[in-house]
Amino acid sequence: MFKFDIKEKVDKQESKRIMDDLTIELGKLQREAGEKKVPILIILEGLDASGKGGVISELLMAMDPRGYNVYSNNRESEEEELRPLFWRFWNHLPGEGEITIFDRSWYYSVFQEGENGKKYKRRCREIVHTEELLSREGTLIVKFFLYITKKEQRKRFEKLSENPSTSWKVTKRDWKSNKNYDEILERYGKLIGDTDTGEIPWNLILSEDLDTAKLKVMEELTENIRSYLDEDLPEREVELPKPKKEFKLEEAKAAAPVDKDEYRRKLKKYQRRLHELEHEIYERRIPVVIAYEGWDAAGKGGNIKRLVERMDPRGYDVIPIGAPTDVEKIHHYLWRFWTKLPKGGHISIFDRTWYGRVLVERVEGFCTENQWMRAYGEINEMESQWAEDGAVILKFWIHIDRDEQLRRFEEREKIEHKMWKITEEDWRNREKWDEYRGAVEDMIRYTSTKKAPWYVIEGNSKYSARLQVMERVIKTLEKRLKKK
Amino acid sequence: MFKFDIKEKVDKQESKRIMDDLTIELGKLQREAGEKKVPILIILEGLDASGKGGVISELLMAMDPRGYNVYSNNRESEEEELRPLFWRFWNHLPGEGEITIFDRSWYYSVFQEGENGKKYKRRCREIVHTEELLSREGTLIVKFFLYITKKEQRKRFEKLSENPSTSWKVTKRDWKSNKNYDEILERYGKLIGDTDTGEIPWNLILSEDLDTAKLKVMEELTENIRSYLDEDLPEREVELPKPKKEFKLEEAKAAAPVDKDEYRRKLKKYQRRLHELEHEIYERRIPVVIAYEGWDAAGKGGNIKRLVERMDPRGYDVIPIGAPTDVEKIHHYLWRFWTKLPKGGHISIFDRTWYGRVLVERVEGFCTENQWMRAYGEINEMESQWAEDGAVILKFWIHIDRDEQLRRFEEREKIEHKMWKITEEDWRNREKWDEYRGAVEDMIRYTSTKKAPWYVIEGNSKYSARLQVMERVIKTLEKRLKKK
Repeated sequence: MFKFDIKEKVDKQESKRIMDDLTIELGKLQREAGEKKVPILIILEGLDASGKGGVISELLMAMDPRGYNVYSNNRESEEEELRPLFWRFWNHLPGEGEITIFDRSWYYSVFQEGENGKKYKRRCREIVHTEELLSREGTLIVKFFLYITKKEQRKRFEKLSENPSTSWKVTKRDWKSNKNYDEILERYGKLIGDTDTGEIPWNLILSEDLDTAKLKVMEELTENIRSYLDEDLPEREVELPKPKKEFKLEEAKAAAPVDKDEYRRKLKKYQRRLHELEHEIYERRIPVVIAYEGWDAAGKGGNIKRLVERMDPRGYDVIPIGAPTDVEKIHHYLWRFWTKLPKGGHISIFDRTWYGRVLVERVEGFCTENQWMRAYGEINEMESQWAEDGAVILKFWIHIDRDEQLRRFEEREKIEHKMWKITEEDWRNREKWDEYRGAVEDMIRYTSTKKAPWYVIEGNSKYSARLQVMERVIKTLEKRLKKK
Repeated sequence: MFKFDIKEKVDKQESKRIMDDLTIELGKLQREAGEKKVPILIILEGLDASGKGGVISELLMAMDPRGYNVYSNNRESEEEELRPLFWRFWNHLPGEGEITIFDRSWYYSVFQEGENGKKYKRRCREIVHTEELLSREGTLIVKFFLYITKKEQRKRFEKLSENPSTSWKVTKRDWKSNKNYDEILERYGKLIGDTDTGEIPWNLILSEDLDTAKLKVMEELTENIRSYLDEDLPEREVELPKPKKEFKLEEAKAAAPVDKDEYRRKLKKYQRRLHELEHEIYERRIPVVIAYEGWDAAGKGGNIKRLVERMDPRGYDVIPIGAPTDVEKIHHYLWRFWTKLPKGGHISIFDRTWYGRVLVERVEGFCTENQWMRAYGEINEMESQWAEDGAVILKFWIHIDRDEQLRRFEEREKIEHKMWKITEEDWRNREKWDEYRGAVEDMIRYTSTKKAPWYVIEGNSKYSARLQVMERVIKTLEKRLKKK
């Protein structure tokens, strides 16, 4: 293991020797982390002109490009602007065996937002949560903050300004940030303090001398990775979120029957209204997330089709969720849902969802008990982030009873063009009805929140189920549109 | 098989019956195409208010969302604007077993560009090429153009305008397009004519009555898919592009030796210059593609590292190309390169490239002879599209001789931190040296073009190879920056 005393400026010769060793060591660690499938996230924050770019180049020189990525959080793109703050970061998180460098991260974004009241507190919570979430699933996070003195910063700006080929780099904002140096440093200090749980400590690097800073970063990084790879971290306790009340599926209200004429009349009316609302939420740039879960053969597909039938296809997406692809598999289980979030003004309809974690993955043992138990809280937090940043979220559990499912399974096996819909797996799942029911009940009690409520839709009558969903969507969108 | 006479408006009852049958048929075909791994691309073009949205909704109603996508080419995003025209379409092409609907496609984009000289001709060529390229690798393309009379169009605009909830849909542009109806129809007619090779015929659908139009589209689509799935299409002849002259790797000029001092001095100078140029191309929004190929152990990795060492990490990406992921595997072999194109102002450095098709895939038999032979032309066309739309392209073959490779392999096996770089596969490839050499020589002779030239870099001396590449990149960027 490497441990150098580089608190003091070291001489050039010595510094080069150490750096050469660290470079080889980092390459080795990258390969080892790759084999052990550890995702590594390096967060690099710092004052303007503190040498972040130089440090990144140094790190990249030591690494094999097959396996690293750099994401620069410097300018918000149009796509990013239209989504919750953390969307951009989720899009660039490392997968198993990958290393990602965030050249400025959520800290910078929150710093830039410049809030200090309720929203600031929320952001702090989001940061803490996100880092914990990732680290619990095995991501190693190493955080650096580079700082320099006010005088040194001014010197660097001056030097850059004098050279015609670099003068473009120094903006008015930079000079202003030098002037407000003390305030900025204090604000960063506060943010770091407010988000510090001690679990993922910061490395504060004085960068007056860039070579020394590079050495320190390399040293801390290799040490962090080395000890992470050598240690087995204990799994932390899981706290279930406090449920409002017990929930039993049997209590789901039976829907009033609907005859064909009433169905047709209402369907037409609702679809016309949905078409209008689709436009209104587009105008207001409101993102809408509609999540469908339900028993096999509950009629989710047909329900979704009616919901979108008269909508403009440019405004919505139906996102079927099946087995994850190999790229999805090497990421956090929520990654593929974050990355598929609709942008402001668009509607994403998920045909099966992130709740797979606490349904099929729980029942079939695809994840550990610890994992699905903590998923309730993780999902609540994710939906809360979406909602707080403006999204409308509706979740539907389409419910049929066991007899109705049997009837539909048998019907599917009889009708030629429906046969493909029924597989061995459906029959197997059916045998586990009670286990699934327990999982569904837990899901609803632990994750039905004010901002992302579950609606249990009684689905023995398909007509009624379709109308119920539409009514609920219309009501929710209308309510949202009335606000501000 | 279905064949209905729906030239005349059919009565409602009859129409519904036919549509129900077609809906079942399309669902069946979708599953069959899925099993046979056929990608299906549906191109929907048409006049304003001709009912494209309604037709799409109808198609979607008939399909299983697990397997279809809709891409609307209505408004250019920031990301799209900064890249070659066809980039956006490549990003949304169907993979094996998938169905994609382009709600307006390259035809609309070219129509919107409104060019009529050289650029228009180029676009026509690009359209023809892209459709052929996809269809040769097995994509079924079905094209529809929906049209209505001038009078009907005006009527629809008026009707939309009268209803307060839809009046937003009718813009000034729409009224203008109704006024210029004749000219617009004529221009579309010309474009369709200029790009028609008879291979992928258009379905021109009169849409005065929307229900009839929906029926026709459904009928044509199911028929097209049915006959495609039933027929075995013959492979077409491949024509090799005309090479300028024979090329022999032995003729690659041996580079003058460079001593350590000269190397350090020049390295520093070139890296500083590259840093400046990186900014200048950013300012001018020029995309730069740098492709690296070379023998195993030729030193590509180290070469790339020196090239980017002093660049700002925000301006470039190093893209290592390994085995394709499962999502990449179900797409056209060029898909993963198109989708990774740098945007204007950015530099993408590919560590191995699309030339894998005519190198490893050819030599190891991973594709058919027909496939790699036609790849030369396909790659030339792809690079030509990138270049014509503004990209700078440089391609480097890092060359070492057989003895030097042996020396490096043996060295790697001796040094602990280099051991991971050498595998059984490297030794196996080495045995096929002559086959690979032939493939490299063919590659260079068939794909070295004025806009995307190959540079053979003599690499027995790593120092020299690094400096040669930098010199070439600097020279090329400087030349490009002088233009306009």
